[in-house]
Amino acid sequence: MTATVLAVLGRGLVDSTAPIARADDPGLTRGDGCFEGCRVQTAPDGTSTVDKLEAHLARMARSAKALDIAFDPGQWRALVDEALAAWVAPGEAAMKLLLTRGPASAQPLGFAAIGPIPADYPRLRRDGLKVITLDRGTGHDAFADAPWLLGGVKTLSYAVNMAAQREAARRGADDAIFVSADGQVLEAPTSSVVWSDGRTLFTTPSGPSGILASTTLRLLFDRAEAAGWPTAACPVSVEELHAAPVLCLLGSVRGPVDVVDLDGQARERNPRIDDQIRRLAGFPSSSE
Amino acid sequence: MTATVLAVLGRGLVDSTAPIARADDPGLTRGDGCFEGCRVQTAPDGTSTVDKLEAHLARMARSAKALDIAFDPGQWRALVDEALAAWVAPGEAAMKLLLTRGPASAQPLGFAAIGPIPADYPRLRRDGLKVITLDRGTGHDAFADAPWLLGGVKTLSYAVNMAAQREAARRGADDAIFVSADGQVLEAPTSSVVWSDGRTLFTTPSGPSGILASTTLRLLFDRAEAAGWPTAACPVSVEELHAAPVLCLLGSVRGPVDVVDLDGQARERNPRIDDQIRRLAGFPSSSE
Repeated sequence: MTATVLAVLGRGLVDSTAPIARADDPGLTRGDGCFEGCRVQTAPDGTSTVDKLEAHLARMARSAKALDIAFDPGQWRALVDEALAAWVAPGEAAMKLLLTRGPASAQPLGFAAIGPIPADYPRLRRDGLKVITLDRGTGHDAFADAPWLLGGVKTLSYAVNMAAQREAARRGADDAIFVSADGQVLEAPTSSVVWSDGRTLFTTPSGPSGILASTTLRLLFDRAEAAGWPTAACPVSVEELHAAPVLCLLGSVRGPVDVVDLDGQARERNPRIDDQIRRLAGFPSSSE
Repeated sequence: MTATVLAVLGRGLVDSTAPIARADDPGLTRGDGCFEGCRVQTAPDGTSTVDKLEAHLARMARSAKALDIAFDPGQWRALVDEALAAWVAPGEAAMKLLLTRGPASAQPLGFAAIGPIPADYPRLRRDGLKVITLDRGTGHDAFADAPWLLGGVKTLSYAVNMAAQREAARRGADDAIFVSADGQVLEAPTSSVVWSDGRTLFTTPSGPSGILASTTLRLLFDRAEAAGWPTAACPVSVEELHAAPVLCLLGSVRGPVDVVDLDGQARERNPRIDDQIRRLAGFPSSSE
C-alpha cells in the first residue's frame, strides 16, 4: 500500500513518503512489532469511518501485550481520528496501524497510514480467487502452551506469508491457503478461510493452531447467526474443502472473495450465497 | 544495537539516529527483507576488518535471491568500506547489513550499521550461558521442498526468535535452543548449536530442518578439521545434549560461548576445550 496520509504517534501528520523508522528499530531489523489492516469508508462529503475499529484496536492490544510492547488504545483512537480527518477521497480505502518495539534508546514507533485499496481488489472480488494450498510446516496444535511462537499474534514478521503469496503468483494463482503438517486447513497468508455446506458457515479453529482470530469473521458470524445461519469453527481437510459448495477467503479490506479454483480444480460459483456472505460482512454484492 | 555509524546504499553516510525506512516499505510492514550480523575488529590505528565478510555477503545474496530482491555484492562491498572507514574505535564492534524489499514505488533499502557489541557479551563470554530448550513447532524436515517457508533464509521476520529470548529471560536464562516438534535439536534464536564428545565437533544439520547455515560454524569446522578434529552435522536429542561433555552456542558477533546450565541442570565447564573452540573460531580465550 502506498500511503497518502500518514499520522505518527507523538508527531501527528507527516509527509507519507518521508522515512519514519530508524535503522536500530527492532520493528525494522527483527519484524518485532504488530499491525492491523482496516477498511475505511469515506462518504461523498469526505467524512470517514473505519469498519469495526474497536475490534481492530482490541486485537492490536492483545498483539502488543504478547510482545511486551506498551499500547494505549486512547492514544490510537486519537491517532486514527487525526489520519481520518486528512483522508477525504470518497469510497473505500485501506488503513494500516503499525507499532514497533522502537530502538532501545527511544520510544516505540506507532503510525496510522491510509491509502487506496490494492489495485487488483476490484478484479479479484468480481472474478474470484484462484488459490493453491501450501504446507505451513507446523502441526495443527503446535501453538498450544508455546506463547513464544506468537500464535494468533499479528506481528510484523510476515516474510513467510509474503513468500507464500509469491509462490502462488509463480504458479498462476492469486492467493494461498496454508495447511498444517498433519493435513488440517489453517488460514490464508492475509485472510481467513470460510466455507459452507449451503446451510452452516464454517471456519477453522484459532487457538492451538496459531490461526489469527479474524475480526471480519467475528462480524460475519455474529450477523450470520442473527440472520439464522448456524456457524461453527471446526477442523477441515483440503479434500473436504474441495467438496464444500461454498468457499471463500475473508480479509478486513478485501472482504469475502469466493474461491473459483482450488489447486487447479475449477469450482462452481454460487453467486446467491456469495452475495449473502458479502452483505453480511458489510461489503457490497459482486454485481454492485 | 545502537548504531553509531550508518551508511545507506545510494546515499552514503547519514546520521545514525535519523529515520531511514518508509511507512510503506515491506521490510518494515512485513519483515520482508534479509540481514547479516558481522563482527568488526578495529586496530589501535583505527583500521577495521570484518570477520569473513565474503561468507556473509554470499549468504546475504542467497537470502535476497530466495526473497526475489536484487542484490549486488560489489555495491555492498563498497558500502561496507564506506562504513568501516568511519568507524575508528579500537577493539570489537558489531555490523549489521540489512536489505528490505522497498516500497512499490521506490528502491530496496540497504544499509550497513556499525555499533558497539551488546553490553552483556563480555559477561556471557566469561560466565557462560544459562539456556532453556523451547519447542519450535515445526518437524525436523518441515522445510524440505517448501521454499515459501524460507528455511535457511536470514529474513527480517525474527519476532519468534526475539520472543523466545524474552521467554528465556522470563525463566532466568540467557538464551534458548529451539527443538523440533519431533524432538530434534535445531538452533538457537540468533546462534547455532555446537557440541562435542571431546573428540569430534558436532552441529545440527541445515537444509530440510530450516536451520540457518552458520558462517562462524563453517569457519570453526574448517579450522578444526585442519587442526585434526573430526566434524559432523548430525541430528541430536536434548537428552544427548545433556550427555555431551562440551556444548556451546556459536554466533558471528558473540562467538562460541559454552552452556553452563541447560534446562535448569548445571553443566561442568571444560575451559581447555572451550578455549580451543574459541581460538579456532577466531575469538580470544575466555581468560584474555
